[in-house]
Amino acid sequence: MAEKHRVLILGGGFGGLAAAQALKSAPMDVTLVDRRNFHLFQPLLYQVATGSLSPGEIAAPLRSVLNRQKNTRVLLANAADVDPAQRRVLFDDETSLPYDSLVVATGSEAFYFGNNQWREWAPTLKSLEEALLIRQKIFLGFETAERISDAAQRVPWMTFIIVGGGPTGVELAGALAEIAHETLRHDFRNIRPQDARIILIEGTDRILPPYPTDLSAKATRALKKMHVEVRTGVNVTNIDAEGVKIHAAAGDEHIPAKTVLWAGGVVAPEFPRKLAARLAAPTDNRGRIKVTPELFVPGHPEIFIVGDLATLAGRNGVPLPGLAPVAIQEGAYAARTIRRRLESSPTPPFRYFDKGSLAVIGRASAVADIFGLHLWGLPGWLVWIFVHLMYIVEFQSRIVVFIQWAFQYFTFSRGSRLITGPASAEAAAVEGMDAPPSRSPGDPHP
Amino acid sequence: MAEKHRVLILGGGFGGLAAAQALKSAPMDVTLVDRRNFHLFQPLLYQVATGSLSPGEIAAPLRSVLNRQKNTRVLLANAADVDPAQRRVLFDDETSLPYDSLVVATGSEAFYFGNNQWREWAPTLKSLEEALLIRQKIFLGFETAERISDAAQRVPWMTFIIVGGGPTGVELAGALAEIAHETLRHDFRNIRPQDARIILIEGTDRILPPYPTDLSAKATRALKKMHVEVRTGVNVTNIDAEGVKIHAAAGDEHIPAKTVLWAGGVVAPEFPRKLAARLAAPTDNRGRIKVTPELFVPGHPEIFIVGDLATLAGRNGVPLPGLAPVAIQEGAYAARTIRRRLESSPTPPFRYFDKGSLAVIGRASAVADIFGLHLWGLPGWLVWIFVHLMYIVEFQSRIVVFIQWAFQYFTFSRGSRLITGPASAEAAAVEGMDAPPSRSPGDPHP
Repeated sequence: MAEKHRVLILGGGFGGLAAAQALKSAPMDVTLVDRRNFHLFQPLLYQVATGSLSPGEIAAPLRSVLNRQKNTRVLLANAADVDPAQRRVLFDDETSLPYDSLVVATGSEAFYFGNNQWREWAPTLKSLEEALLIRQKIFLGFETAERISDAAQRVPWMTFIIVGGGPTGVELAGALAEIAHETLRHDFRNIRPQDARIILIEGTDRILPPYPTDLSAKATRALKKMHVEVRTGVNVTNIDAEGVKIHAAAGDEHIPAKTVLWAGGVVAPEFPRKLAARLAAPTDNRGRIKVTPELFVPGHPEIFIVGDLATLAGRNGVPLPGLAPVAIQEGAYAARTIRRRLESSPTPPFRYFDKGSLAVIGRASAVADIFGLHLWGLPGWLVWIFVHLMYIVEFQSRIVVFIQWAFQYFTFSRGSRLITGPASAEAAAVEGMDAPPSRSPGDPHP
Repeated sequence: MAEKHRVLILGGGFGGLAAAQALKSAPMDVTLVDRRNFHLFQPLLYQVATGSLSPGEIAAPLRSVLNRQKNTRVLLANAADVDPAQRRVLFDDETSLPYDSLVVATGSEAFYFGNNQWREWAPTLKSLEEALLIRQKIFLGFETAERISDAAQRVPWMTFIIVGGGPTGVELAGALAEIAHETLRHDFRNIRPQDARIILIEGTDRILPPYPTDLSAKATRALKKMHVEVRTGVNVTNIDAEGVKIHAAAGDEHIPAKTVLWAGGVVAPEFPRKLAARLAAPTDNRGRIKVTPELFVPGHPEIFIVGDLATLAGRNGVPLPGLAPVAIQEGAYAARTIRRRLESSPTPPFRYFDKGSLAVIGRASAVADIFGLHLWGLPGWLVWIFVHLMYIVEFQSRIVVFIQWAFQYFTFSRGSRLITGPASAEAAAVEGMDAPPSRSPGDPHP
């Protein structure tokens, strides 16, 4: 019996998982490798960061997603290098795996414009751990402010800056506004959570730059109504423990803030860069690999790159965006192409089927560009809910997420706003913090 | 206007929260201080550790639980010391708060019988972080075994030892057995999760020692049916990276195991020990404070101790156990007593109303001693479910938990078995691990 064709998939995100699932019952040996044992539903990660959902509700164990695919196994490992001549991937524990076809779908990491020292003060939303760190920062900000008697000293703890006006930045800003104005409304005795300042900073001249201009304008108006300061055409020149320095046409400014969230661009991490170097593959300025129209590395038809790591011009010449639908369609395409090759069928080039873009702003508020149809407000939001529930991998999560949302809609509460993690076991010791004033209770905000 | 009576409650667990809630609309200034911003439903913590529930589902933000109590504020701080003469509690950030009545409900920590170095290898189930660490250890054990080709080398990764045969130990052992025999059944290609060895070690002659003997026997039988090795009359003499050394009547033995969980006894942490010293309060051998029948520290009627930290003989002379119902009743009693004193009403001594004990073993299997009625199997389990759902603080959590359980009951799946945390980002590098054998797929366990 001839050995079966071995497909190795690196990464269990949208692209890698779609590739694995599209190989269901193919006469091949499929191995999916990920550093983590779960698929993360990244579009809802901002809801973990802002206390609406729990990690388990947006993550599905890769093994259980794939356990009915008898031709597929899942391994936990961290890809370190590739040997294209031997057709082997090397892992950081010095093990290796052979492949006949390789699908690289390991994703991107946050790009700090060459200022990696900012990362310490401005975490980004890429992993569950980072989402919980952001959650910790947000809610500890209010907790700390509650304990500071001097009003001026509270200000940086109640100033929240989001850098980057793409969908993630808009979603974070909207959720923060809801936390300050709704969720925490009645929870404090010394501070008014509504006094929080939420600032969304975008370098270009409008938020949601890849969206149609009318939807950008709708989103801006919706955010302003929620008391978010939207500042466009503003560049960040420094971030440290004290806050953010910005440069704008009007001049430079320093905004004191203890909570800064990074929702800027992305860049290729170390492993795909090494891969590109090994294969002498062309890359763009963010390290993304320029793939052929069949999504493989030029000169290496056996190596497919899908998702955030690949760059490929769409129909209008603009590179396809780093979105879940792109990754899913690319992963499934790579799998289909591998199957077709084995059947010696022709392999047409990849075509992205653009169903549109969505960004949520808050309760009953979103902007949507669906097949060219522009929606906003409640209709946009209903589309957003429907699409996201449909995409969530596991049926169980779908129901639980729906219930959490329904409760939150009617009660404004956020059940998952726990501050967890190593640092949170001790309350932050703050300069200038003293015993809370022994003011008399009762409604403190007449 | 006279200053209001100031009640300071340390700890937002079952005892502290019950005290705060029992002071609702009392004409007092109530402050509840906790290190964390949430109340943890500790009886279900083992379900987080074993991947059934997510942290947010068993924790409720203290602020939202108490936000309708206008006389109560919540602060995040870590108690460090007390000044009984000035009636002030000092926190580790050098702030302090005054009190007229103090309720200390800060809980206990795990007791390693003087071998704190075991903690590194045998985490315990006290906090959400520890529960996630245990979850990580359990599921990484199977993941690592899957990658080891040599069957003998896999054994320690698939050996799970639980030290302590109380309710927590029994619950952990039962859940582990379900993970190995049901949840993971179809998920691996190289290992058979059912080959996992699960050993429950208890020093006395039966598990669930405080329960009626017939229920101990039922629990033992149920666990054995689930392939758990129950070893009673066995003492642990060492725990390290390689496994556990035990001493039994039959002789000494070393059991190689990479996952050891500690479900032994508890002891008073540093702050209450300092408190006891400052107040010259009598303590037992675990540092618990021997309180008066009115639950205050002898000589300090203004300082109440409730929950795990207090020791008080029950009706039969045996000290009350460290259970949620005891803490809840004690907290509410302390609050009532403070109110009565202000009203100059008589203050009867505390009486524990014992509704019974419950321990769950697995799916449709639990033992219950309810008002002297002994239940086991499905009836015991239904009582367990009912009681636990009723106790969960938030209505929202109650529904979500119920749905998670319903799904798990019918599907055997565990939606929350994510391996998270700092260490999990890299897969463990294991001695002797090499590339998985390139065996052909299909059902690997004929």
